[in-house]
Amino acid sequence: MATLRRVALAIGDVGGIGPELAARVVVDADANPGDLIVIGDRRVLEMGARHARVSLDLPTIAPDDLGAGLPEGSVFVDVGNCDPETAPVGTSSEVGGRASLENFAVALLVAQSGLADVASFTPFNKHAMRLARPDYVDEIGFVDRTINATRSGREFNVLDEVWNARVTSHIPLREVSDSLSADRIYDSIRLTDEVMRAAGYEHPRIGVAALNPHAGDGRNFGDEDEDVIRPAVERAQEAQLAATGPIPSDTVFVRATRGEFDAVLTMFHDQGQIAMKLLGFDRGVTLIAGYPFPIVTPAHGTAYDIAGQGKADTGATFNAVALGRRLAKMQTRPDPDPDLRETLPQRIEKMLRAGVTA
Amino acid sequence: MATLRRVALAIGDVGGIGPELAARVVVDADANPGDLIVIGDRRVLEMGARHARVSLDLPTIAPDDLGAGLPEGSVFVDVGNCDPETAPVGTSSEVGGRASLENFAVALLVAQSGLADVASFTPFNKHAMRLARPDYVDEIGFVDRTINATRSGREFNVLDEVWNARVTSHIPLREVSDSLSADRIYDSIRLTDEVMRAAGYEHPRIGVAALNPHAGDGRNFGDEDEDVIRPAVERAQEAQLAATGPIPSDTVFVRATRGEFDAVLTMFHDQGQIAMKLLGFDRGVTLIAGYPFPIVTPAHGTAYDIAGQGKADTGATFNAVALGRRLAKMQTRPDPDPDLRETLPQRIEKMLRAGVTA
Repeated sequence: MATLRRVALAIGDVGGIGPELAARVVVDADANPGDLIVIGDRRVLEMGARHARVSLDLPTIAPDDLGAGLPEGSVFVDVGNCDPETAPVGTSSEVGGRASLENFAVALLVAQSGLADVASFTPFNKHAMRLARPDYVDEIGFVDRTINATRSGREFNVLDEVWNARVTSHIPLREVSDSLSADRIYDSIRLTDEVMRAAGYEHPRIGVAALNPHAGDGRNFGDEDEDVIRPAVERAQEAQLAATGPIPSDTVFVRATRGEFDAVLTMFHDQGQIAMKLLGFDRGVTLIAGYPFPIVTPAHGTAYDIAGQGKADTGATFNAVALGRRLAKMQTRPDPDPDLRETLPQRIEKMLRAGVTA
Repeated sequence: MATLRRVALAIGDVGGIGPELAARVVVDADANPGDLIVIGDRRVLEMGARHARVSLDLPTIAPDDLGAGLPEGSVFVDVGNCDPETAPVGTSSEVGGRASLENFAVALLVAQSGLADVASFTPFNKHAMRLARPDYVDEIGFVDRTINATRSGREFNVLDEVWNARVTSHIPLREVSDSLSADRIYDSIRLTDEVMRAAGYEHPRIGVAALNPHAGDGRNFGDEDEDVIRPAVERAQEAQLAATGPIPSDTVFVRATRGEFDAVLTMFHDQGQIAMKLLGFDRGVTLIAGYPFPIVTPAHGTAYDIAGQGKADTGATFNAVALGRRLAKMQTRPDPDPDLRETLPQRIEKMLRAGVTA
């Protein structure tokens, strides 16, 4: 008998479109089939509902109540950490940044405990987060620390039927070449294959981007394509993975959009982001996989310019939550340590007291 | 009184769509207002005309005749270097590669001498050129040697109203960072501005791409954006150039396509090519500028799969020749040394005798 899979949804930056997007997820029957654990400040969610011109009907519990079983249906966990009167709409603020981090940390602890099977969040604003915590780099580092991860997750970008994964991400371009190895690329191909199978692709076809112009043009413009990427692709092929490459990075996305590949594995951040953003990635979903539970979020940002006006497009957020659900349903996750569930309220309280900004 | 500006058009690879494209340029009144110097083997052009189902009416002269004045109207220079019977259509061949190189060299010498004001060519095939000349790297190196250039040209890609220039091009990605300097980037901005003014842009708006993810994210992911690119952009702004940047490379093309910039200056090859190819650059034009005369060619390749069928799209080739003409009309080129004109037949003969493949 299938147990209900739950989705933890952290409300993102209070100054952006995150509160109204969260309110819309709550009131939409498709986006909310009763499996949500929405996390944030009740006043912020209510503000979002006003902006979105919807009425909420969502029971509220305190973080402390998470130790007992959850009620049936979706529920709101009121962290009580952000008075919207103190955080202006349409701009970044320290209070908004701190609340985003806290909501996200609670969502992560909830998912880690097994109470939810997916963590998700409406858009964050990095500037706001850095007002609260100047050393904040990116979500992956924050997740690593919050759940004491043994290995870091990897980011995937999903737009329509094109997935993009990358071998390296937030590092200087000059360090990319030395950061690549056949092992690391092979691992990325394998993880991409695994994650996409979990999302329902039977035999995902992965186009592997080359590093150098014209894939090195037969070693005229660099050797990595022959010495590092090709051996990784060959090893993947021997392992029966549908990997192809190295393919010049200026044609691999053209081929993917024509249906030749389900995913493109890029060697560095902008190699994929240039393509995905041109293809309209604002409509897409960012997935962080490789942790015991998937993390999903819409690809677009806080859109301060239209925040509070109720005109934010919900497509990407709905897609994000739907992808998270699809992945949660397929995953075979080992049961979390029961201790994690029992001590959840205490760990949340400890985190909030110590402050995510410390 | 304006003198007629001439366009030297070298027929590209015999196995591809180049011969039929050249034939179509010749018969189209807009693409050929009587200013063409078409260069190749007469038999190849006639084959192209058969494939394109058009009839030619173009006087033929020998390279030796180039010493005397040209007749009125367009003319064909028969290099007599490629019997189509020996070069299969639909594939690359050594004979096709050699003839491409020779035709291109003649076009360059003709333009260098002042007899033409633009050099252009229908598509080459690099594999064929390397069958003929294994050390062939790219057009720029070939032009440098053929005309003994004192400085190398720079490639621009032009698609609809978006131009792309790059600071570095055919080098390994790992060498990009060390190849950048504020001087070099400033020079690229200035050259882009000059070339675009010559193409009719009054005050071209140039978006300068960042090198690192998120433009370095405030030095979190590399320092070049602050230390190298920003100073170059500021110097350009002080010189009254409409340069903006560094702009994250995953948003700069999105902004350009929305009309915010006329050109994007990228730091390396694929940074621009990923975007331009996704935007449909096969319809676009490649321009090499920085020599005493512009060099233009359609951005697409030889399209062996449809060669000889008369169905090649002429749009990019017509656009290329039109852009060349536009640039030739605006340019203020110093009169070439009269010696270059007088000795042109001898220099062509010497080049053909020594062989471009040596």
